[in-house]
Amino acid sequence: MATTDYTAMWEGLGIDLEAHDELLQVLGAAYADVFLSQENRPEGMEYLDFVMTEIHGLRIQELLDVKKRGGKVVGTFCLYVPEEIILAAGGVSVGLCAGADIGTQQVEQLLPRNTCALIKSFVGFKLARVCPYVEACDLVIGETTCDGKKKAYEIFGELKDTFVIEVPHTKSDPAKALWRSEVGRLVRKMEELSGREISAAALRESVRVVNAKRKALQRLNSLRRARPSPISGLDALLINQIQFYDDPVRLTEKLNALCDQLEERIADKVGVAPADAARILVSGCPMATPNWKVPSIVEGIGATIVAEESCVGERGTRNLVAEDGETREAILDRIAERYLQIDCACFTPNTERLDHIVEMARDYEADGVIHYALQFCAPYTMEAYKVAKALKRENTPLLTLETDYSMEDAAQLETRVQAFLEMLEQSGRQQRA
Amino acid sequence: MATTDYTAMWEGLGIDLEAHDELLQVLGAAYADVFLSQENRPEGMEYLDFVMTEIHGLRIQELLDVKKRGGKVVGTFCLYVPEEIILAAGGVSVGLCAGADIGTQQVEQLLPRNTCALIKSFVGFKLARVCPYVEACDLVIGETTCDGKKKAYEIFGELKDTFVIEVPHTKSDPAKALWRSEVGRLVRKMEELSGREISAAALRESVRVVNAKRKALQRLNSLRRARPSPISGLDALLINQIQFYDDPVRLTEKLNALCDQLEERIADKVGVAPADAARILVSGCPMATPNWKVPSIVEGIGATIVAEESCVGERGTRNLVAEDGETREAILDRIAERYLQIDCACFTPNTERLDHIVEMARDYEADGVIHYALQFCAPYTMEAYKVAKALKRENTPLLTLETDYSMEDAAQLETRVQAFLEMLEQSGRQQRA
Repeated sequence: MATTDYTAMWEGLGIDLEAHDELLQVLGAAYADVFLSQENRPEGMEYLDFVMTEIHGLRIQELLDVKKRGGKVVGTFCLYVPEEIILAAGGVSVGLCAGADIGTQQVEQLLPRNTCALIKSFVGFKLARVCPYVEACDLVIGETTCDGKKKAYEIFGELKDTFVIEVPHTKSDPAKALWRSEVGRLVRKMEELSGREISAAALRESVRVVNAKRKALQRLNSLRRARPSPISGLDALLINQIQFYDDPVRLTEKLNALCDQLEERIADKVGVAPADAARILVSGCPMATPNWKVPSIVEGIGATIVAEESCVGERGTRNLVAEDGETREAILDRIAERYLQIDCACFTPNTERLDHIVEMARDYEADGVIHYALQFCAPYTMEAYKVAKALKRENTPLLTLETDYSMEDAAQLETRVQAFLEMLEQSGRQQRA
Repeated sequence: MATTDYTAMWEGLGIDLEAHDELLQVLGAAYADVFLSQENRPEGMEYLDFVMTEIHGLRIQELLDVKKRGGKVVGTFCLYVPEEIILAAGGVSVGLCAGADIGTQQVEQLLPRNTCALIKSFVGFKLARVCPYVEACDLVIGETTCDGKKKAYEIFGELKDTFVIEVPHTKSDPAKALWRSEVGRLVRKMEELSGREISAAALRESVRVVNAKRKALQRLNSLRRARPSPISGLDALLINQIQFYDDPVRLTEKLNALCDQLEERIADKVGVAPADAARILVSGCPMATPNWKVPSIVEGIGATIVAEESCVGERGTRNLVAEDGETREAILDRIAERYLQIDCACFTPNTERLDHIVEMARDYEADGVIHYALQFCAPYTMEAYKVAKALKRENTPLLTLETDYSMEDAAQLETRVQAFLEMLEQSGRQQRA
């Protein structure tokens, strides 16, 4: 996909060039097929197309430039790793590749077959040496959100420097204290890694930068409440994915420019699908790049995804860090508080998430909800039962999908989504009658 | 299996009598087949046979008598629930039924199919109304050791009063503080439930009682180091299972009497298998009653299981509560410390467990280790990788099994165990040559 020749750079990172070339070809073709084929896309998506074209090229070059200047590149797999702390230490935070089946045979030597696709993928990208992000990383920060990742980091740690922070599973006062203390431990780790002290001023600035990015994403998401939505769910998902890779300041600027265009489209009633297309809220597991499988099926049939209740979606962007912290410790308190608001299914109980799904379905005027879960992801597949109950109380139709990254079940998923959309259409007609 | 007619009692508990009769018949037949058919069992096993015969009868009657006197019956599924606190509140702690496939179809309406057999089982026993223990319970205490149980308790809580305590996933100082605070929360809950204050004296006594039970179990286990082992692995497992149900004081007395007999057998070199039978350490997931599947296969072929590195085995019994606490809070500190020594695979890292497996294999002179994991149990299936590495360093042969409660794979398991035993035999012959 890249326009410049980055072979030497990849070679320097220890990438398996042949396998990587193959991956880029498959990725490029999938991207053209899923994204570039969309009609009437907002102009501002050009920047995102450019980022995707250069995702293993120019962006990696930028990371290596940061490293040359003494900055550290830190890889993460979870919303629970505070980007603010990495930035304040002069580092760059990158979400690591975890959205495609890679090196599965090798992975299954280390992990049980019954492991979710996302976990297999992040280990697979490392084993197959095709992810320049993980190779460029000085450190990977893991967390204890789920059994699968928690135990996989122990094995992954044999392949790459990994630092694991404990995320508690309730939000009690002692759990909050544990989490606050883990935030402090991460600060000390980043200071040690970067060789520089994390000051209150640096934290204040990084909080501002990350809040600005989240506000731009909030703005983007809220514009999708319009009817018709001015942007496809696929493009919105792509943006939510890219925010884990791109430079936050630059991306914020580009997103705000895109939002200006979307506002014009809304004023002109321009959308990517007809105004009466079914409006779908997708809720559940994160879709890591390049996992576009279910959204491409849903929008391929003509529905519009109007929101994502997901780590790669509103779960990751809806809460801001309060900017009133004066001292370093006070700012870290605010950071810790903000992160513990995330309604991950690792928490018990997790009623905030149920309430939020209901609220989102209302706010985005969703005709139905698709609960998306990765097979073998116990937290989300099990919480689906509570989601179903909460939506039933609201009379909001729900389709529950459990899948992985393979395309083997694509036809079956399409049939189920199609049937769901027909059911929505029918009940909509009844309501209008 | 019961000798008296308990129909009225079961009816009073809301048991589904027909399904329960069927269960008892199957259980009785399995028990006769697996346990009573063993040759040359120690005489002291008669008490255990009696307990098993009356497990849904006399023991339930005893629990109901406790309730009549104002005591509370509390159900648990995990070593992490401190029995001492339940006893100190005048209650009885019982491990709930979770070792057989029951009500699977109904369960799979509530839980994903990809849930481990133990979790499906505890929900199934409740849905099918065939476990008099859960029906007799005033409260069930859950914990956050694994994703599956943690999220299943949210659903189980709709069927039965359930109180969940948070077990952290590291053993850092703030994690210890969180755990200590959860111990305190459990004390307050038990005080509220029982309507009585938990005094230092009551705690001191319950610590003594539970320590005495653990010491008897330690004594029993350590006698299995003899060659030949004076007791089968099946009988030892049964005792480890029954200790979750039976009255602790009575059981302790009976176990010590049994151990006296076992010491005589050792002096007389009497065992249940020839002295040259392969000695197997079983390590991994708990085997809840009546899950005797893998041990019956292993010992059915002629090997002897000499130890269990399991929650239903040494993981549950090897640590005692220090008895030097003077005040109530000091005793609770000791209790919290003891429980956090348990090397459950929920912890990261969990090197204590790896070290302990190696140590046990040496101490019990095991010829080989069988790692037993329930399918879909992420913590143990994933930790198996580290177990394999640790045992490889010691040149200890390992067989890794992943299974569930169905008998569909019994023949395949038998073939694999048989091949493993032949391999041990061969390498033993080579070493002797």
